[in-house]
Amino acid sequence: MENSRQISELVIKRLPRYYRFLGELLRTGIKRISSRELAARMGLTASQIRQDFNCFGGFGQQGYGYNVAQLHEEIGHILGLDKKQKAILIGVGNLGRAISNHVKFEQLGFQLIGIFDRNEALNGEIIRNIPVRNTSVMDEFCRENLPAVAILCIPKESALPIAEQLIKLGVRGFWNFSHADIAVSHPEVSVENVHFHDSLMTLRYKIND
Amino acid sequence: MENSRQISELVIKRLPRYYRFLGELLRTGIKRISSRELAARMGLTASQIRQDFNCFGGFGQQGYGYNVAQLHEEIGHILGLDKKQKAILIGVGNLGRAISNHVKFEQLGFQLIGIFDRNEALNGEIIRNIPVRNTSVMDEFCRENLPAVAILCIPKESALPIAEQLIKLGVRGFWNFSHADIAVSHPEVSVENVHFHDSLMTLRYKIND
Repeated sequence: MENSRQISELVIKRLPRYYRFLGELLRTGIKRISSRELAARMGLTASQIRQDFNCFGGFGQQGYGYNVAQLHEEIGHILGLDKKQKAILIGVGNLGRAISNHVKFEQLGFQLIGIFDRNEALNGEIIRNIPVRNTSVMDEFCRENLPAVAILCIPKESALPIAEQLIKLGVRGFWNFSHADIAVSHPEVSVENVHFHDSLMTLRYKIND
Repeated sequence: MENSRQISELVIKRLPRYYRFLGELLRTGIKRISSRELAARMGLTASQIRQDFNCFGGFGQQGYGYNVAQLHEEIGHILGLDKKQKAILIGVGNLGRAISNHVKFEQLGFQLIGIFDRNEALNGEIIRNIPVRNTSVMDEFCRENLPAVAILCIPKESALPIAEQLIKLGVRGFWNFSHADIAVSHPEVSVENVHFHDSLMTLRYKIND
């Protein structure tokens, strides 16, 4: 179960979805599920599910099906959701507000501890019980509070310099909503991109006729 | 160039990124680039780039490098960006507002023609020159205007019923920001998901230590 570092990116990308589906099963009171049933609900094959779970040591019990609560908890543990990491968010536009207000950080392994914007008019506004601070005090804040992760809701132009500033301050992961490719110039940090435009172009391709 | 239907999902996912990078090169005045140089800028290998481009017939000129403008245009054409498809957006919360206001639909092969919300207090508000309409008139609007794509910025609970309503009205693609898995129950339509929570959990896994 611990030797999970060599797992392929594709299997890792599926883990959150398993976690989400199992959570929904739990909420609807389903206690046990076979890989065949789980596969049907998720649009996968049973053998793919078994193969994925084998990467993490199996979670066993084939004949009887999986114990939903236990599997949910184990996948959550593999993802690290049971150990909160500190996060800050930069950029309080519509997107930054949507992310701050609606993302369930605590359930996803994070604690949002700071929100920053360069617009002084926003200073002191309270979002999710956190006062918006000016980016000018971000250095000091990070040295005191050591966030592991930064959420970038800022334009592409500002993203790279801000990322570089934060990497020097110990930030080692980025949830990146800007269209800057931070990972190319900084392979030493973890980056999870949400590139809206790339996603929309992919959809445009898919509906070609 | 036309036989692009059998291309793997992974290559397709990289096309928007190529398009984005080539656009940036164009804007900085770079006219010609070798696969080696392009690879270095994108964090890929030259052979991967050549392999990807071969899926679409090559784009040739190896010794001399690629013509940036021509390659940008051809990839745009493969993606379908030169032929606009009509899109509507449903759900005018912070996220819906951010998407409506900031996404460059016209450059990405779409024309945003309608915005809907079930909250009557928002009726008539103008966003991006489009009046917000009540979801109660969505049927009528779709029968008249035939949007190909719907952008779902609504909670998970409403996403599936709304998607089903829209599929009956001829919508065949979804840009899905809700955490509902539309593609599982409706394999006949194209779905591009932006699942924030899955993305954040993936980041949590990556920064495990």
